[in-house]
Amino acid sequence: MLSAKIISVGNEILIGQITNTNATFICEKLFSVNIGVRKIVSIGDLEKDLFDELSDSEKFYDITIITGGLGPTSDDITKSVLVEFFNDKLVFNEKIFENIENIFKSRNIKTPVINKEQAMVPSDAKIIWNRLGTAPGFCFEKNDKLFIALPGVPYEMEEMMNNSVIPMITEKFVDKVEFIQKSKTFLTIGISESSLAELIGNINELVGENYLAFLPSLIGVRLRVDVKAKTNQEADEVIESIERKLHAKIGEYIYGVNNDLLEQIVGNLLKDKNLTLATAESCTGGLLASKITDISGSSQYFLGGVNVYSNESKIKILGVNDSTIREKGAVSEETAIEMAYKVRLLFNSDIGVSITGIAGPEGGTDEKPVGLVYIGYSDNNKTFTRKFYLGHFRLRNKTRAAYYALNIIREEILKY
Amino acid sequence: MLSAKIISVGNEILIGQITNTNATFICEKLFSVNIGVRKIVSIGDLEKDLFDELSDSEKFYDITIITGGLGPTSDDITKSVLVEFFNDKLVFNEKIFENIENIFKSRNIKTPVINKEQAMVPSDAKIIWNRLGTAPGFCFEKNDKLFIALPGVPYEMEEMMNNSVIPMITEKFVDKVEFIQKSKTFLTIGISESSLAELIGNINELVGENYLAFLPSLIGVRLRVDVKAKTNQEADEVIESIERKLHAKIGEYIYGVNNDLLEQIVGNLLKDKNLTLATAESCTGGLLASKITDISGSSQYFLGGVNVYSNESKIKILGVNDSTIREKGAVSEETAIEMAYKVRLLFNSDIGVSITGIAGPEGGTDEKPVGLVYIGYSDNNKTFTRKFYLGHFRLRNKTRAAYYALNIIREEILKY
Repeated sequence: MLSAKIISVGNEILIGQITNTNATFICEKLFSVNIGVRKIVSIGDLEKDLFDELSDSEKFYDITIITGGLGPTSDDITKSVLVEFFNDKLVFNEKIFENIENIFKSRNIKTPVINKEQAMVPSDAKIIWNRLGTAPGFCFEKNDKLFIALPGVPYEMEEMMNNSVIPMITEKFVDKVEFIQKSKTFLTIGISESSLAELIGNINELVGENYLAFLPSLIGVRLRVDVKAKTNQEADEVIESIERKLHAKIGEYIYGVNNDLLEQIVGNLLKDKNLTLATAESCTGGLLASKITDISGSSQYFLGGVNVYSNESKIKILGVNDSTIREKGAVSEETAIEMAYKVRLLFNSDIGVSITGIAGPEGGTDEKPVGLVYIGYSDNNKTFTRKFYLGHFRLRNKTRAAYYALNIIREEILKY
Repeated sequence: MLSAKIISVGNEILIGQITNTNATFICEKLFSVNIGVRKIVSIGDLEKDLFDELSDSEKFYDITIITGGLGPTSDDITKSVLVEFFNDKLVFNEKIFENIENIFKSRNIKTPVINKEQAMVPSDAKIIWNRLGTAPGFCFEKNDKLFIALPGVPYEMEEMMNNSVIPMITEKFVDKVEFIQKSKTFLTIGISESSLAELIGNINELVGENYLAFLPSLIGVRLRVDVKAKTNQEADEVIESIERKLHAKIGEYIYGVNNDLLEQIVGNLLKDKNLTLATAESCTGGLLASKITDISGSSQYFLGGVNVYSNESKIKILGVNDSTIREKGAVSEETAIEMAYKVRLLFNSDIGVSITGIAGPEGGTDEKPVGLVYIGYSDNNKTFTRKFYLGHFRLRNKTRAAYYALNIIREEILKY
């Protein structure tokens, strides 16, 4: 397996001002092409420290990726240290200069003198084009090892990794890649880690020599399958076969894969079935509606919702019976059912969903503790409620309740 | 200045599965007591790599903090490598064993055998108590240098840093701390970075030898003042004096300090003035109401809101005039004003706030581009609207619109 090291340059990481999310992105990308990152180093804007790290890289790693320190100001040291380390010199690059000028022109600003310096590039390095910013990247090669410098601005770096660096690396090391590695993550909701493990049973039977990771998150357990194979096709086949077996065992709990969003999945289902939705929220205070409307095009199926935080508004705006709230309480099965049913009538939607509960940290009692949440569902054929105990933390409770409500919608539409 | 290094141990960081947020937290904490982190290293669960890093630490850094690898399973290598590195041995610690047993007892689980192993601790190390989990931390001292190992679980590590490690370090190095360093961040909203810079004027006059950082964020620019002084009291005085000057120049744009949340600030203002609030949202789809109800106790002042995503719901539920929407459009000054006014009547609240706009990426026109948002405000004395152009990205637009609406509420209550 090829080995890699990441060097992140910049004081802002060392004083705790920003988190090194660039390293996470690069690790994930390299892992996907079966290159193992063995070390991540963050250092400040000190020339000596970067020089030392490059010397270490030269000895031990096939690929070194440096992020940060390519900007136009005096504390940006990466380019000058690389030039010194590789005994290179800077030359003016007309094409990069044009790119810089165009970027400033599009912002209606005259190119500042310091940005012109960014068109001076190392003569021995391959240039890595930056489509989104003024700092180009560089790739030096020495003794069959690659040293790649990228800007620290996340979206610039990510674009360059995806479209330049990964193709460049895989092309160079094509004969060294003994096998390829692929991952697929299955997103579950509504089942605990241990119940999932029980239903899945013998993991070895499921994945063989490959790897299955259980990754709990706030709203459900993600199952990541890592597969190694000789070819891309073989990897796809193995993943497909594991996917089939997983679906046979726990299919009803899987709502999506990889970076799918439940709010998008539910939106697609509503669109496919030509159904409309309205929401009535108490303890989540609009979070469910907000998640639904995070999806572009949600106006096709989401008619709207009410955030009936006070009892009066539940009664006056939504039409919940005064007596229901008085006798059963605002947090009750009966209130949740009336909320779901009546919001459907109010918006004249196909589906109505309601959430009422005790978000905490205040307001809990022995009978109705913090974390108790009722989710109501109503459509033309049925109206029901489900009860959840979601824990002690207000924001987590809100998020969990919103996603569990989305999942109830998903489950019900799938029955249509 | 004392120098520190952080070593994070764990494959999950190197494959890009998690981001090293522990390092950010530790950097910030150390920086606050004037200890400079010079290097952060992430390595996998490889004994040799950790051993090499410890050798490097021994040469160059006063303090080394290791996180991760203290769990009970075989891939947890930190304890055994430390024991080897310091030629120590493991001994059974009764008190830690009791803590582990109590933790499992509280979960109603019999203590697993592998967790008993966690009561075996290095004989030469000072134990760092873990109140929230089963893995104790350790502190080795050698040649006046500290080596501190903490678990990788963020909330356990954070509690131990705050309550054990920082006091331990400052006590040990009390004579080496030449000056102390303090920061305070001022949170602004509703003004651009360059306009702020213009109003502030000469930075040197404002902060002298100290440092002022401009930190733009999605909803506003944060201004961080870093002050160095001989004593805590002197630092506080310098910060206070800078704060006074800042308030004289840009006070109206500052809504809070450090980790204050605008939704909390607005909530406190509403509570203080005994005012109630209702919201009518279109393009933000409930996000404003959700932010407001993120705050515990918000039911005291937030009566509720409507997410009137469709035109019909704007007319039917909120009572916006059919003709207003037909003639001026759902995204217009007139609709925003009616929404704010009518939601106030609907909920019988003191204040009504509305948001209507084009969140994007679809739906923009030349006349009404993506990012155009009207925010309406209504109370007993006045009703008005403000127009914003928020940019091209849907989720950013929603967030910005919600926070700008909160800021309008803040500004208006301050005039009461």
